[in-house]
Amino acid sequence: MSILVVGTVAFDAIETPFGKIDKIVGGAATYICLSASFFSKKLNIVSVVGDDFPKKAINMLEKHHVNMKGLQIKKGEKTFFWSGKYHNDMNTRDTLDTQLNVLETFNPVVPVEFQASEFLMLGNLMPSVQKKVLNQMTERPKLIVLDTMNFWMDLFMDDLKEALKEVDVLTINDEEARQLSGEYSLVKAAKIILKMGPKYLIIKKGEHGALLFNNNEVFFAPALPLEEVFDPTGAGDSFAGGFIGYLAKTNDISFDNMKRAVINGSAMASFCVEKFGTQKLTEINKDDVDARINEFVNLVQFDILLK
Amino acid sequence: MSILVVGTVAFDAIETPFGKIDKIVGGAATYICLSASFFSKKLNIVSVVGDDFPKKAINMLEKHHVNMKGLQIKKGEKTFFWSGKYHNDMNTRDTLDTQLNVLETFNPVVPVEFQASEFLMLGNLMPSVQKKVLNQMTERPKLIVLDTMNFWMDLFMDDLKEALKEVDVLTINDEEARQLSGEYSLVKAAKIILKMGPKYLIIKKGEHGALLFNNNEVFFAPALPLEEVFDPTGAGDSFAGGFIGYLAKTNDISFDNMKRAVINGSAMASFCVEKFGTQKLTEINKDDVDARINEFVNLVQFDILLK
Repeated sequence: MSILVVGTVAFDAIETPFGKIDKIVGGAATYICLSASFFSKKLNIVSVVGDDFPKKAINMLEKHHVNMKGLQIKKGEKTFFWSGKYHNDMNTRDTLDTQLNVLETFNPVVPVEFQASEFLMLGNLMPSVQKKVLNQMTERPKLIVLDTMNFWMDLFMDDLKEALKEVDVLTINDEEARQLSGEYSLVKAAKIILKMGPKYLIIKKGEHGALLFNNNEVFFAPALPLEEVFDPTGAGDSFAGGFIGYLAKTNDISFDNMKRAVINGSAMASFCVEKFGTQKLTEINKDDVDARINEFVNLVQFDILLK
Repeated sequence: MSILVVGTVAFDAIETPFGKIDKIVGGAATYICLSASFFSKKLNIVSVVGDDFPKKAINMLEKHHVNMKGLQIKKGEKTFFWSGKYHNDMNTRDTLDTQLNVLETFNPVVPVEFQASEFLMLGNLMPSVQKKVLNQMTERPKLIVLDTMNFWMDLFMDDLKEALKEVDVLTINDEEARQLSGEYSLVKAAKIILKMGPKYLIIKKGEHGALLFNNNEVFFAPALPLEEVFDPTGAGDSFAGGFIGYLAKTNDISFDNMKRAVINGSAMASFCVEKFGTQKLTEINKDDVDARINEFVNLVQFDILLK
C-alpha cells in the first residue's frame, strides 16, 4: 500500500542538556517518511523547501523509498527553519526562532500519480494546507491520519475543526487534547473529540506513553524506559510514521491491528530520541526494530488468571 | 500467608476540586489493610491512635480481616491528623496541617503472635520506627516491602538507607526515586537504588502508571484511564496493599508473579481514587476487582507477530 505524507521538510537547530546542533535536516515529513520506510517502500511526499536544501538530504530520503516528485524546490528562497531549546526535564521546550520562509506561501500540489495513495498522513502543518491536500485526492484514501499542534489550535481552530471532519485518526498530545476538547480528563476529552470527526484518537504523552481511543475501546502503550533521552525532536512524527507505516504494510485498519501499529510507532519514537535529529533513524535496520518491539512485549505483557 | 502491616491510622481532612471532607478515617495502614483484605484474610496491624479514634472504624477494619491486637490506643491522646488540598491537576497537593499527636512518641510493639508473619509491609512512617518493627520479627519474613516518601528523605536519609539494606521491595514515586538516587533518568535511578538493598523497586507515577524493576528486567503497568479522579489520597497505599496482598495470597514472589501483583495493586488504586478517602474500598467486592483486572488486560494486551 502506498502512503502519501504531507508535512514540513526543514532545517532545525536544537539545544538539549546533552549538547547543541546548529543546522540539521528535520521537519515532520522527514521524520514520518524515515520512520515509515521501515514498513513501506511506497512513500510519496508532498512538501516544499528552498534551493538552500541539500541534494544529499533529498538523496537520503530517496534511498529510504521516498518518491520526491511532490517536493517543491523554490528558487531563490530559503527552507523553513526552526530552533528550540529543551529544558532539563526534556518534556518542555522553548522555541528560540521560527523562520517560515517557503512555508509562508506553500500551496501544496499533489502529483497525479500520488492522488490515489491508499494511506494519507497529514503531518503537522497549517490546517488549511492539510485540507488542500485532502481535496486533491481522487479517491478517498483507505485511512487518513492527521497530526496537529496547539499552535494551530490557537490561530486556526475553525479550519482545524473543518479538517477534522474528514479524517479517520487524529494524533495530538495530552495538552492539545485538553485544549481541543475543553476537558481536563483525557477520557472525557476523547469522547468529545471523537464526536468531531475522527473515529480514532491517539493521545501522545511523551515519556508517559500513548493512548488509543475509539468509541468503545481504549488501548495504552508505554514509552520504553530509556537511560537517556538525548533529543525528543521528531518523536511524535516518528511515532506517526511507524503507526501508519505498519497499518499500510499489513493493510488492516481494525482496532486490534491499530494496537500493534501504536506499539510499532512507540518503538520508532524510542529510537528517534536516542540521538540528535534523524541520526538514529538512519542508522538502524529492521532487525533493530523487531528487537525493540520485543522489548515492548516484555515490558507490558503479563499472564493473569483470575480467581 | 499472614501479612503484618505497619503504618499510620489517622484522621484526614481533604479538599479536591470536587469537594471537601472534614475528618475521615485514613492513614497508610488503613488503606493498605483495606486493599490487602481483598486477597488475604490474615492481616495483622501495628499502629497507634488516640482515644478519640472511633470504635466503629476499628470494627470496620476487623470486618476486613484485620487483627487489631497491635493497635495501641493512647488514653487522653489524639490520633494523627493530616489535612491537604489537591490542585486542579490532581497530581500535586499542599499539606495544610499536620498534627503528629500520638505519632510523636510512637514506639511500635509487635505482638508475639505477629512476629512470624510471612509478609511484612512497612508502610510510610519514620524510618527508625520501620526499623524497630523489622527488629522485632523472630523470623525473617518471606518478603519485606517498604514504602516511604520525600519527607523522610529530607529529614532522615541515613536512617532510611539503613532500613533499605534489609528490605526486598521499595515503593516510591518518581520524584522520590530521583531524590534518593540523585539521577533524573528513572532507569539510571533504579540501577542505583537496587544497589542500596532492595532487590525490587517499584516507581509509582500516579496517573502515569508504575514501573517494576529488578536487576535484569523491567515491567510497566499503566494507571487505568478514568473519567474522574475524585480524590488521590491513599492511592499509593491501596496499590501497596493490593501488591503485597496478591503476593501473599499466591505465595509466589517470582518476578512474573510480581508483575501480576503490580496489576492487582494498580486495580486497587484505581478504585481508591474514585471516591473520597476509603469509601470506595469499603463498597466493592472481589467480583468488582476481577472485572477491573480484566479492564487492565484489555488496556495493555496485544498480540504481535514479528516479520
